[in-house]
Amino acid sequence: MNTLGLISMRMCAGLMGRRTTMLLRSTRCSFGMTLSQIDEEVAKLLELKAQLGGDEGKHTFVLKTAKGTRDYSPKQMAIREKVFNIIISCFKRHGAETIDTPVFELKETLTGKYGEDSKLIYDLKDQGGELLSLRYDLTVPFARYLAMNKITNIKRYHIAKVYRRDNPAMTRGRYREFYQCDFDIAGQYDAMIPDAECLKIVYEILSELDLGDFRIKVNDRRILDGMFAVCGVPDEKFRTICSTVDKLDKMAWEDVKNEMVNEKGLSEDVADQIGQFVSMQGGQDLAERLLKDPRLSKSKQACAGLTDMKQLFSYLELFQVTDRVVFDLSLARGLDYYTGVIYEAILSQTLPATVSTAAEQNGAVAGDEAGVSVGSVAGGGRYDGLVGMFDPKGRKVPCVGVSIGIERIFSIMEQKAEASTEKIRTTETQVLVASAQKNLLEERLKLTAELWNAGIKAEVLYKKNPKLLSQLQHCEETGIPLVAILGEQELKDGVVKLRNVGTREEVDVPRFNLIDEIKTRTS
Amino acid sequence: MNTLGLISMRMCAGLMGRRTTMLLRSTRCSFGMTLSQIDEEVAKLLELKAQLGGDEGKHTFVLKTAKGTRDYSPKQMAIREKVFNIIISCFKRHGAETIDTPVFELKETLTGKYGEDSKLIYDLKDQGGELLSLRYDLTVPFARYLAMNKITNIKRYHIAKVYRRDNPAMTRGRYREFYQCDFDIAGQYDAMIPDAECLKIVYEILSELDLGDFRIKVNDRRILDGMFAVCGVPDEKFRTICSTVDKLDKMAWEDVKNEMVNEKGLSEDVADQIGQFVSMQGGQDLAERLLKDPRLSKSKQACAGLTDMKQLFSYLELFQVTDRVVFDLSLARGLDYYTGVIYEAILSQTLPATVSTAAEQNGAVAGDEAGVSVGSVAGGGRYDGLVGMFDPKGRKVPCVGVSIGIERIFSIMEQKAEASTEKIRTTETQVLVASAQKNLLEERLKLTAELWNAGIKAEVLYKKNPKLLSQLQHCEETGIPLVAILGEQELKDGVVKLRNVGTREEVDVPRFNLIDEIKTRTS
Repeated sequence: MNTLGLISMRMCAGLMGRRTTMLLRSTRCSFGMTLSQIDEEVAKLLELKAQLGGDEGKHTFVLKTAKGTRDYSPKQMAIREKVFNIIISCFKRHGAETIDTPVFELKETLTGKYGEDSKLIYDLKDQGGELLSLRYDLTVPFARYLAMNKITNIKRYHIAKVYRRDNPAMTRGRYREFYQCDFDIAGQYDAMIPDAECLKIVYEILSELDLGDFRIKVNDRRILDGMFAVCGVPDEKFRTICSTVDKLDKMAWEDVKNEMVNEKGLSEDVADQIGQFVSMQGGQDLAERLLKDPRLSKSKQACAGLTDMKQLFSYLELFQVTDRVVFDLSLARGLDYYTGVIYEAILSQTLPATVSTAAEQNGAVAGDEAGVSVGSVAGGGRYDGLVGMFDPKGRKVPCVGVSIGIERIFSIMEQKAEASTEKIRTTETQVLVASAQKNLLEERLKLTAELWNAGIKAEVLYKKNPKLLSQLQHCEETGIPLVAILGEQELKDGVVKLRNVGTREEVDVPRFNLIDEIKTRTS
Repeated sequence: MNTLGLISMRMCAGLMGRRTTMLLRSTRCSFGMTLSQIDEEVAKLLELKAQLGGDEGKHTFVLKTAKGTRDYSPKQMAIREKVFNIIISCFKRHGAETIDTPVFELKETLTGKYGEDSKLIYDLKDQGGELLSLRYDLTVPFARYLAMNKITNIKRYHIAKVYRRDNPAMTRGRYREFYQCDFDIAGQYDAMIPDAECLKIVYEILSELDLGDFRIKVNDRRILDGMFAVCGVPDEKFRTICSTVDKLDKMAWEDVKNEMVNEKGLSEDVADQIGQFVSMQGGQDLAERLLKDPRLSKSKQACAGLTDMKQLFSYLELFQVTDRVVFDLSLARGLDYYTGVIYEAILSQTLPATVSTAAEQNGAVAGDEAGVSVGSVAGGGRYDGLVGMFDPKGRKVPCVGVSIGIERIFSIMEQKAEASTEKIRTTETQVLVASAQKNLLEERLKLTAELWNAGIKAEVLYKKNPKLLSQLQHCEETGIPLVAILGEQELKDGVVKLRNVGTREEVDVPRFNLIDEIKTRTS
């Protein structure tokens, strides 16, 4: 206690000195305080805070997970496993490998990749050594991995958690720790073939997950840029107008136009021209028509995008997925790094409020009106420049990929499970080894070990003399389908009484035949 | 640009105002600045910094992962998947559920759980809001989860990464981000039944992983404490003497004794008495003998431990694992929270230098002499007090568990794979759809989609007109066993030429029969 007092005293003296310095330069610093000076001040303040003993006083210990995070219960894990299995099977069916990267990266690896969203990055404390940040997505670490290992072509998936200091108050239901589930194809290939495969994958996954009707909107960054150019949007406003267009799926055109004119400073005429384009939806036919559009065809960029779009649809036709894919000129995904085709998959089904906002992450966007909205569950596009940002010589590796909005899918599956009468099992146990009589623990353990050794999933209660009723109850509660019951008589006869928990039927099975019988019954 | 300028101006004005306030209270705050005031100042400074545009200057960018971390390549992921499958199958065979917890916890959740190792905890930067730390193991989050959800019994496994700011210079080959793979049984049960199951699980996993001969050492915290007491070690030295004893597997007795006497201040006589005990190894017989030991039997604690040890061995006998389990009085695992039985599994095989130090984590310990040492690959024990530390009313939930030293196992498996002639496949692709002729891209894509739709794992090269040779090479390199070759003639005849990559045999298969044929050949 004495020592602590001394430290506090010294600390406060130090602080006084510091304060004096700050005071001296207080006018200058308002306009001239440098970043390193700010860093210094922050470090000193935090040090003071730490020395004062962390948080104020001794408050009661709060038993909770960090804000914006959650535990997964066994039931949620069972659903998660089911969803992952479907998705991973699809990725493997398409010949993908998988990689993993650390949960944190050098801070500078993430710098300059996310625009104004960078403020949402979690930094690690400077405890000496490198400055680190938690990964914000899986795409930037993937690009870093490719550049670092000089990999010029790979088809990989990566399923892992990413971290964003989003404000849950503003974005109800969004998590700060959430899964991303990415599939990307890197390499110099003939146009639109890998792009078409990404869309095929989204189609397969959403069909298999059985989430109801869905649509996949497709557009191209180059078509958007060309469109803005021919409509008369100044170059430097492309990105900001892009993000306004992006709001069309939750705002009426009038409001979007209003934002363009009154907030972003476009003339009404320019906005109206954009309005005409972004109302267009179609397929290969629309791409062909726009290629002949007298204005759009003047933009080289737009033509390149439209030619690729035509090509893309011809491949999608071969993949038999055009029934769900729409070329939609209003699609304008936010991320800066897209350079070509972009896409987003949207569920048509109406979802309850809690779900509709549960996972607008993955760069996905969901409607605003709870209970009415449709929601984005996958998104992606082509980003040919990102790897080059990491390569010392700027060598580019063209990439196209898709991210599945898995948190949202979890939420939907959870709700479906809750609504269903079918119970979710959290274990896979096939048989419980039980007894109705006392003093048979040893026999139960011996039989259980025999079953384990034969690869049977078996449980035994950790009680010397459990009641038969509580053993049967355990089966009912956890969904174990069979009970192997041992008694003095069974042991004498060399049999085990095998009980079907559902039908309550019991039959004596010779012990030597028990393993085969269980395997047959549970296969 | 103009807008930005305005914001800066406003920001600076705001800062000026703030500075004035600080100035006004500058003397008071040296002694009276509250923590929340510090928080506020820090947040404002950081905001200013962000608005000023992040980091100063442009230094050279280093393309690397954070110190002590690594990427997993597709090949390493293939091995990781194989190992995980074996381990998870075993956990499921024993009826375990699984849970997941966030990668970071409230800092105070971890406080006071790891003794002096706490300095190795990664803290997150204080960016406003809660103080957070990366998880250090999976046991403390598990205990927090149980207390928070008032769960009094569960059998769960949890496989996830944990984080320790270890000094890689001192601990060659250790990672700062590494997997733990934990199985725990929580609940009030009859003595030693769940404990025996944990040992059975270690036995099964190590056998199935085929890592060569191994031994599982078992001891009990209460036996160690009782032994120290009857030998005359002062109470307050139990823990520190415990950690000295723990070094016996890499140091000779003379050196251990030396440390006890010269560093820890035991008398030579006391040290010698300990020396007699810790040289003892055996099974149930040793437990029985020690129960009759005139000195040890005076310790209530030791007797409780020895009685349980006898019981444990009787269950291990039933589980048929006593051939590998040794009651070893020198085993003294480091972690503070153990309250009863403790164990550690050690591989007998000699390992190359790189491996032997690769994963001394998980609380596991490995020998020091590279190339000669045996290494710990699993460890655990009973911790009946940990959950109570989180429960507001201190309600205890007895727990016993085991952690598999998975990083070490990865390393061994990787080395085995490298030494083997068998190639590791990183994809599961069954067939490549190929063509020897030009202008058949559409036909290749169509057939590929047919195969995907039928659940066949299929690839197609993303080239309009790839050479047959490069298509065959792709199969050789990635281990694809079959090629489905399309040509004008095959299309006319309604067949596909199915080629076995290994034998180079080719056979025409009717198109309607192709899917069945591929399934038969690859099953």
